[in-house]
Amino acid sequence: MVIVMEKGHTEAQRQAVIGILTEFNLKGHVSEGDTETLIGAVGDTKAAREYPFDSLPGVCSVLKISKPYKLANRKFHPDDTVIKVGDVHIGNGFLTIIAGPCAVESREQMLTIARAVKKAGAHMLRGGAFKPRTSPYSFQGLGEDGLRILADAREETGLPIVTEMTSPMQVDLMVKYVDVIQIGMRNMQNFELLKSAGRIGKPVLLKRHQSATIEEWLMSAEYIMSEGNDQVILCERGILTFDKEHNRNTLDISAVLAVKKVTHLPIIVDPSHACGRREDVPALSRAIVAVGAHGLEIEVHHDPDKALSDGPQSLYPEQFERLMRELNIISMAVEGGGRMLPQLMAEKAGEEIGIFQD
Amino acid sequence: MVIVMEKGHTEAQRQAVIGILTEFNLKGHVSEGDTETLIGAVGDTKAAREYPFDSLPGVCSVLKISKPYKLANRKFHPDDTVIKVGDVHIGNGFLTIIAGPCAVESREQMLTIARAVKKAGAHMLRGGAFKPRTSPYSFQGLGEDGLRILADAREETGLPIVTEMTSPMQVDLMVKYVDVIQIGMRNMQNFELLKSAGRIGKPVLLKRHQSATIEEWLMSAEYIMSEGNDQVILCERGILTFDKEHNRNTLDISAVLAVKKVTHLPIIVDPSHACGRREDVPALSRAIVAVGAHGLEIEVHHDPDKALSDGPQSLYPEQFERLMRELNIISMAVEGGGRMLPQLMAEKAGEEIGIFQD
Amino acid sequence: MVIVMEKGHTEAQRQAVIGILTEFNLKGHVSEGDTETLIGAVGDTKAAREYPFDSLPGVCSVLKISKPYKLANRKFHPDDTVIKVGDVHIGNGFLTIIAGPCAVESREQMLTIARAVKKAGAHMLRGGAFKPRTSPYSFQGLGEDGLRILADAREETGLPIVTEMTSPMQVDLMVKYVDVIQIGMRNMQNFELLKSAGRIGKPVLLKRHQSATIEEWLMSAEYIMSEGNDQVILCERGILTFDKEHNRNTLDISAVLAVKKVTHLPIIVDPSHACGRREDVPALSRAIVAVGAHGLEIEVHHDPDKALSDGPQSLYPEQFERLMRELNIISMAVEGGGRMLPQLMAEKAGEEIGIFQD
Amino acid sequence: MVIVMEKGHTEAQRQAVIGILTEFNLKGHVSEGDTETLIGAVGDTKAAREYPFDSLPGVCSVLKISKPYKLANRKFHPDDTVIKVGDVHIGNGFLTIIAGPCAVESREQMLTIARAVKKAGAHMLRGGAFKPRTSPYSFQGLGEDGLRILADAREETGLPIVTEMTSPMQVDLMVKYVDVIQIGMRNMQNFELLKSAGRIGKPVLLKRHQSATIEEWLMSAEYIMSEGNDQVILCERGILTFDKEHNRNTLDISAVLAVKKVTHLPIIVDPSHACGRREDVPALSRAIVAVGAHGLEIEVHHDPDKALSDGPQSLYPEQFERLMRELNIISMAVEGGGRMLPQLMAEKAGEEIGIFQD
Repeated sequence: MVIVMEKGHTEAQRQAVIGILTEFNLKGHVSEGDTETLIGAVGDTKAAREYPFDSLPGVCSVLKISKPYKLANRKFHPDDTVIKVGDVHIGNGFLTIIAGPCAVESREQMLTIARAVKKAGAHMLRGGAFKPRTSPYSFQGLGEDGLRILADAREETGLPIVTEMTSPMQVDLMVKYVDVIQIGMRNMQNFELLKSAGRIGKPVLLKRHQSATIEEWLMSAEYIMSEGNDQVILCERGILTFDKEHNRNTLDISAVLAVKKVTHLPIIVDPSHACGRREDVPALSRAIVAVGAHGLEIEVHHDPDKALSDGPQSLYPEQFERLMRELNIISMAVEGGGRMLPQLMAEKAGEEIGIFQD
Repeated sequence: MVIVMEKGHTEAQRQAVIGILTEFNLKGHVSEGDTETLIGAVGDTKAAREYPFDSLPGVCSVLKISKPYKLANRKFHPDDTVIKVGDVHIGNGFLTIIAGPCAVESREQMLTIARAVKKAGAHMLRGGAFKPRTSPYSFQGLGEDGLRILADAREETGLPIVTEMTSPMQVDLMVKYVDVIQIGMRNMQNFELLKSAGRIGKPVLLKRHQSATIEEWLMSAEYIMSEGNDQVILCERGILTFDKEHNRNTLDISAVLAVKKVTHLPIIVDPSHACGRREDVPALSRAIVAVGAHGLEIEVHHDPDKALSDGPQSLYPEQFERLMRELNIISMAVEGGGRMLPQLMAEKAGEEIGIFQD
Repeated sequence: MVIVMEKGHTEAQRQAVIGILTEFNLKGHVSEGDTETLIGAVGDTKAAREYPFDSLPGVCSVLKISKPYKLANRKFHPDDTVIKVGDVHIGNGFLTIIAGPCAVESREQMLTIARAVKKAGAHMLRGGAFKPRTSPYSFQGLGEDGLRILADAREETGLPIVTEMTSPMQVDLMVKYVDVIQIGMRNMQNFELLKSAGRIGKPVLLKRHQSATIEEWLMSAEYIMSEGNDQVILCERGILTFDKEHNRNTLDISAVLAVKKVTHLPIIVDPSHACGRREDVPALSRAIVAVGAHGLEIEVHHDPDKALSDGPQSLYPEQFERLMRELNIISMAVEGGGRMLPQLMAEKAGEEIGIFQD
Repeated sequence: MVIVMEKGHTEAQRQAVIGILTEFNLKGHVSEGDTETLIGAVGDTKAAREYPFDSLPGVCSVLKISKPYKLANRKFHPDDTVIKVGDVHIGNGFLTIIAGPCAVESREQMLTIARAVKKAGAHMLRGGAFKPRTSPYSFQGLGEDGLRILADAREETGLPIVTEMTSPMQVDLMVKYVDVIQIGMRNMQNFELLKSAGRIGKPVLLKRHQSATIEEWLMSAEYIMSEGNDQVILCERGILTFDKEHNRNTLDISAVLAVKKVTHLPIIVDPSHACGRREDVPALSRAIVAVGAHGLEIEVHHDPDKALSDGPQSLYPEQFERLMRELNIISMAVEGGGRMLPQLMAEKAGEEIGIFQD
């Protein structure tokens, strides 16, 4: 339920609405848009549905929201959310590229890759210190040592860092070192983790589980948001299908379109995990930009044959650099599509590929 | 099993190989490439596998093909197949757009749409005269009357026509009226129909069943090809997944990449049936070109609210026209991507969207 | 739309209703149940929905049917349909076992197996003469020769025969030789074939496509029934899922429960094709009976190592015999479950397994 | 890699093998079976594979294990694992029924249901105190208060209690109150939770994620076992498919057969969550016993209309009682099937249903 306030309503009128919501055990979440003020009723709204909110002074109308997600619902927040991480924007009007290795393996490895992706124009740096691996016998990440290395890479390159949180017990480490907290697909419905991550107050990048519907995914975003944190970045990374021979998962590019209709949160896509093979990443990345996503998360490694995880799907730095130029061109053909920053790159891209020449 | 002949082998040597294959109940299918001649052993090759073909005069080597499809296998035919329908090319180096209504409804409807898609730059015209509908109570198509109307539309616009065949009993009609025979997804494993269509000798556009693996799809192509017809165009149109709320099927763009690796046949994509809604078709079409498909099949209707089938997923002619310009730009960013014909359009596109102006 | 007539309505009142339906281009399909007479409106009912049928003389009420299948809908035909093939019943109250090889391979093979399954208590004999194989290079069946052998096996054993039809061109052969026409899963939406099979007037066993929803499956039954043939037997045989390592398809036993709720048609299950391996067939068969299916279709072969198709999933005759005894016991624990005929077997089963002895 | 020791090998020989494994960073996990002693090499075995273990004194042979799970692998532990919880056995030869409400709601509710399921013959009691709900606005469980109530119910009925753990922070509570720790399907790949649960040392009931392959599921069991805890009970509860209209998930009964082949761990099935509706639970339960599962977990509630979660899928106590009798009969038809305890029930069941009477 969303209560739309009249233009020029008074603070007292607003407080009256919130007071009544409180009596129904609901939180009144105020969202001030460009043209109107909305009060979202957050909680179990069953009991309040019959109350005549629309006859209260200062109230313009009441929107019933049939979807179970409220804070994430575009009806409640019609304007696109654009998240800022330092100078980097994620959301409508921007095309944001997050790149880096699957796992932090060593200081040298991480700094080498950080410099390479920075040079190619990436906006944020990814790297895992806590690795959720299918096998207990696989490399499990460097832990806090890995976070320290990431912080050093940020120090040198200026790129904000994105890294995965896997347990509520890592809250202090996330507070200390990280810019964007990633929730991996296997933990998408680890609700205790979502609540812990939400309370930290930093942007959260929430991967879609391979078997999650759009609605289940947004309900997980709602868990984070219900802790008072509106900064959620959605990330599609491939869904489960019957054909696993050619791709680990099937990249669901139409999810980008579905998500943009029903939520105001930004949506990016990770092509590396969907296909699981380097050779397919550039073509899928072009398609992701063409369909209108707000960004990509791509795995890059300077020496993938020796990578401790996900080597086969990591791009070489020079592939990544070339891909960045292709993406820039495609973004220009997308109506309302995002632009990469710095814009300088666009010109350079045309020049090198040679298609803008007479 | 593919037998690679030496350069400069004699006709007698070639015939000797074919003769031995015949003794094993195998057909010897000769493919002369730019640099070498291959003889494919078509049939059940179990018995012949132990025979020492590589010691025969004129034979260079023998390739074992582990996949059950042979004629469709890129190993057997390394060069891309480019199919010609009149002046239209489908395959590597070309981006071919097939457009038109789901069903032929009337002469006026068909001619109106044919003119519109011709004007926007489409290369071929689609329209169904025999409609496989889920319900026996839905419009089942105009039958031969519909084919006559399609022929008239071809007459006026010069566009080759693509239409669906649904029964082996329609062979004569297909011979008389049609340029490209379409096999719908529900009939992808209707083997009697595949054999009938294959024997006609015209190009066949084979849609992927929503539940078919790449291999099952290529085995169906093999049914057509084993009748002596190499002109098969593959068409992805969405696969079955667990989430049907936002899309009828999930468009599997990574299938384009998988198909290009394992077969020499051209691959196009139909975004209309995957998403089932007009508003998503342009964005998906951009992604399809960006990922490197050889073409698209798109539903267009001048009055979709009154369409007898698939109205909600049909583009308005003016949407289609705008989309054609966007696709042209994106195709230029795709390395090795197809170009639309006539090339004239590309310049026009840049001009109108304004991105090439300095 | 179903029109429920009053008890004691006159023939003239009934004809009046049918006459009005005809004006709306609908067929009036009369179904006389134990307690009431229903007239189903078959066709596209959109236009007729506003007509006040319930104010006509002799009409008791009008049921709206929201599902697109009408003739197959339990609302239209509340009593279970029980199909008779000679002395064999298929439907509520019966547990009917169809057994035999995948394909007819030779007279000797077929007669050997027919005798074995007859001895073990099977009620009908299966065997394919037209085989829809994934590969054009695999054994495609003996055609009419196979049908002749099946007819001979029926002659000797008295078992009605079930065999697959794959093309509308086989109508005459089906009329001449067959008792129950099987439509394979790949042809479930081959609508031209469904119409041809429906017109023959013999019972049709309709396999569910691995990717078909219950509704799509029943719409295919509707195609057969709309040709005036009410004798459709549904057959679940495994659905498509993400895990193909251990089973080709996942047997969907809950489909039995879903089908029984929405349709009056009998539902049997084929465990052999779902699992694809002999060792799992007995356990799955027990589960199928326990869940309440009306029967099973099971592959049996006396020499499966030499079978031309589906050898690995065929039971040996002695396994089949033992299984029949187990099934008989389980059927007795199923409330409202079917009983096998002859009932004599039940006692024998208890005796041999020894659980009824005190 | 599993090293099979010779009969009569010495302790020194065994220690030598373990010592060499240690040099390769592997743990030597000793399993003494009835006839032979096995030493499993647990960890990343890549480096050790070339070492000639089979030439060491006391070593009989070396088995390569191609599957990534080792401790859960039947090759490493050929005998079935039977887990004991007080007097209750779970595993080969037993049919163990776990019943109770979805969530602990109040002392009265829990005790009422506990008494009812005890009376009907259930062996363990389920009830959730920490509820992972899709929505943050739904009832989240009573927490420690719920655990106290469960302990009281155990005190009164003697039934061991099974309850879900959702965070590594609940370790102390699990140690204090619980008999069997349940890991819910959403947390199946919450590896931090698996490790925490494994370290507690109590039996763990591990639900299969709706999208997990058998192998992924066993890898999660491996996480628990690699902490030194061999007591893992697997629980299938429905998998993700394309048809959600009639069932939330598709119950995968063939998983029971697959699991029994590849692992020694017991496998039970939860029909309530798969179907999501009370009316289907009895028939599915019968199928589960008929296919050969080692037990069931079933939701029962005395007043399901007022249940705070999962009401529609909970059986009434009297339905559960009747079902228990049916299951007992079916279990007798399953070769090698489990028997319910106390055996007394079997006779009673026959008597009441009346099938054993002459």
